[in-house]
Amino acid sequence: MVHVAILGFGTVGSGVAEVLTTNGRLIDQRVNNLVRLKYILDVRDFPDSPYQDLFVKDFSVIENDPEVDIVVETIGGARIALDFTTRALKAGKSVVTSNKELVATHGYELLQLAKANGCSYLFEASVGGGIPILRPLTSCLAANELSQVTGILNGTTNYILTRMIRAGLTFEEALREAQANGYAEKDPTADVDGHDACRKICILAALAFGEHVYPDQVPTEGIRRVTLGDVAYADSCGYKIKLLGRCLRMPENKVCAFVAPHLVPGDDPLAGVEDVFNAIAVTGNAIGDVMFYGRGAGKLPTASAVVADVIDIAKDLKKDRRNGWGPGSPDMMVSPDVLPSRWYVRANMTVEQAREACGEIQPLARGGAPEEETAFLTGEMTAPALQEKLAGVDVSSCFRVL
Amino acid sequence: MVHVAILGFGTVGSGVAEVLTTNGRLIDQRVNNLVRLKYILDVRDFPDSPYQDLFVKDFSVIENDPEVDIVVETIGGARIALDFTTRALKAGKSVVTSNKELVATHGYELLQLAKANGCSYLFEASVGGGIPILRPLTSCLAANELSQVTGILNGTTNYILTRMIRAGLTFEEALREAQANGYAEKDPTADVDGHDACRKICILAALAFGEHVYPDQVPTEGIRRVTLGDVAYADSCGYKIKLLGRCLRMPENKVCAFVAPHLVPGDDPLAGVEDVFNAIAVTGNAIGDVMFYGRGAGKLPTASAVVADVIDIAKDLKKDRRNGWGPGSPDMMVSPDVLPSRWYVRANMTVEQAREACGEIQPLARGGAPEEETAFLTGEMTAPALQEKLAGVDVSSCFRVL
Repeated sequence: MVHVAILGFGTVGSGVAEVLTTNGRLIDQRVNNLVRLKYILDVRDFPDSPYQDLFVKDFSVIENDPEVDIVVETIGGARIALDFTTRALKAGKSVVTSNKELVATHGYELLQLAKANGCSYLFEASVGGGIPILRPLTSCLAANELSQVTGILNGTTNYILTRMIRAGLTFEEALREAQANGYAEKDPTADVDGHDACRKICILAALAFGEHVYPDQVPTEGIRRVTLGDVAYADSCGYKIKLLGRCLRMPENKVCAFVAPHLVPGDDPLAGVEDVFNAIAVTGNAIGDVMFYGRGAGKLPTASAVVADVIDIAKDLKKDRRNGWGPGSPDMMVSPDVLPSRWYVRANMTVEQAREACGEIQPLARGGAPEEETAFLTGEMTAPALQEKLAGVDVSSCFRVL
Repeated sequence: MVHVAILGFGTVGSGVAEVLTTNGRLIDQRVNNLVRLKYILDVRDFPDSPYQDLFVKDFSVIENDPEVDIVVETIGGARIALDFTTRALKAGKSVVTSNKELVATHGYELLQLAKANGCSYLFEASVGGGIPILRPLTSCLAANELSQVTGILNGTTNYILTRMIRAGLTFEEALREAQANGYAEKDPTADVDGHDACRKICILAALAFGEHVYPDQVPTEGIRRVTLGDVAYADSCGYKIKLLGRCLRMPENKVCAFVAPHLVPGDDPLAGVEDVFNAIAVTGNAIGDVMFYGRGAGKLPTASAVVADVIDIAKDLKKDRRNGWGPGSPDMMVSPDVLPSRWYVRANMTVEQAREACGEIQPLARGGAPEEETAFLTGEMTAPALQEKLAGVDVSSCFRVL
């Protein structure tokens, strides 16, 4: 029998308990062993929960119970979760998590710790919710040298942008709607400012390129500055505005990673990803482009990914999963400033001034634009080159074109 | 050291040799062992090939070489390929293939044979080319009871339909273009009549529901009867015509599987899958909907999937991969006739006659339609119910709405 403990009975933790119960027979068959939930750790009381007998408030009960093989950490954050994860791994218990913050900031050391203690640290649910992406990246695409990963990694911002595009809501209106629907938190900073997407692209970059990438190494821009005017201009030329997390393999084993709003061409499969859905496109030297699509959040989808990791570990508790990566280093990172691309610019200037400054441009039009406003697409250039050309100009928006 | 033999040096076989060579260092790292190509079996001579020293013409050389651990079967068909696969497995060598015909017709017995001989039979490349789908289905979605799989499984027909939709080519013109571009074979029967998609949905159904589904149990309709008129009517109501392979879990552990052209709603992610791309959507009781997208064919994408299987096996030659399924049975299958859906109908009748026959309908319009032609969408009903209502009517096209 394989025993599981869940830390934190919030949305994801309770979803894990539900999936382990509802699909229990199927899970036992797949593992070829009985997988049983033994403890749920939470400071709160749940007197009406069907799992009432399983609740404990003291982590040391779990830590010191030799029967517990797998600890599911669904607490979130990088404080208590780090403490409990460290202690569980030191006690030789494998840990499964959906906690992107912890993996993005402490993944390297926790993976080393797991290896040293003959157990595993798995985190499929930390990126893309239920979408299978981390295991496919490392096993199904193992024959490839990967060159880049591009993802719509945050459902909240994608919902807001979709509502701006489809229903003509302003950013603020769409955010309020997302909050009312439970898609955005009261304090939406982590989502709308791109921090959540940043953590996820760090994890994807580490798996794709083999070295830890830390959130503070990744230039991150959210969607607060995207206006309905930008949405309309993008639409006029067949593009959609999407918040993308991107990482690219650069020469000399360096890595470039960043998060920013982009104009995505309408015929790119990422352009069709709407509402709270996520999608991750991966490019490899044999496979070309492949994309994974699904619900990037939510109780049961996320629990589906957590329990898949639990099943993987339960099948072979002591297997070395070789899912680690190197420690990374500051000089491994390359600024996105070196990446040339086309740009979308909205600024207070005339088309003639824009052409004079940027050379060949594609002017854009929208109804109801102020007279002094000009929007256009540039040719390929780097961000610093563009900034130099537009020095002194009152630029309202400037987004990369994918 | 792990030794590999390739059977058949055609498109996929030569791609496998190329990936094993080009990405050799990376593959050795991932396997933590040296993976070396030892033989290539082909009846033809390749005097200019860089692999010239590896060619053999007699399979028994491979069969009797105890150093060969993994045999890659890229011959195709279900005759010689069946003989060689059987002999390789009996000799305790694991077999990796891209051969959907062989897996769909003999998968059950070959998986049993692999198990009995302590080796593996893997076939990720047999469905969706390079797209990781079979391993995600069985491992990443292991926590789910799967309810259905829906796929655009054939790149040739998707290319033809895309060209009909986008460029207004007739079926025959688009087919000729596909042949000129190397996307369709001289004899396009297996693709355009749906047999290729049928084999792939058999494999997906077996993995999703655990019992072998044979091609002759799957009602299969190709795209020869799709006209430009149908494409225009579909477009008029926001749908795209796609050839779908579908399998569904039915009550009492029964399975429904079929291949047919469908009208797919424009906002369904499958509608955006164009050209030779494939996509497979999977629904599970925890994850909801998830979709996998990429190149469904081609030398290197397919080789990418084959080599991923080679790497998986090379990491642990004797592991029981538990990827088998039951033998299936005729009474397990349920006809798609029981599945209600909306329908698209084009027929020689008036709108009034259509309304009289089918009740509430949505009439469709297109430019240049003959006066006697009416096209419409029906409400939900089964195929036999629809046929009864349209008895005696001259029906030109009748496709299910997804």
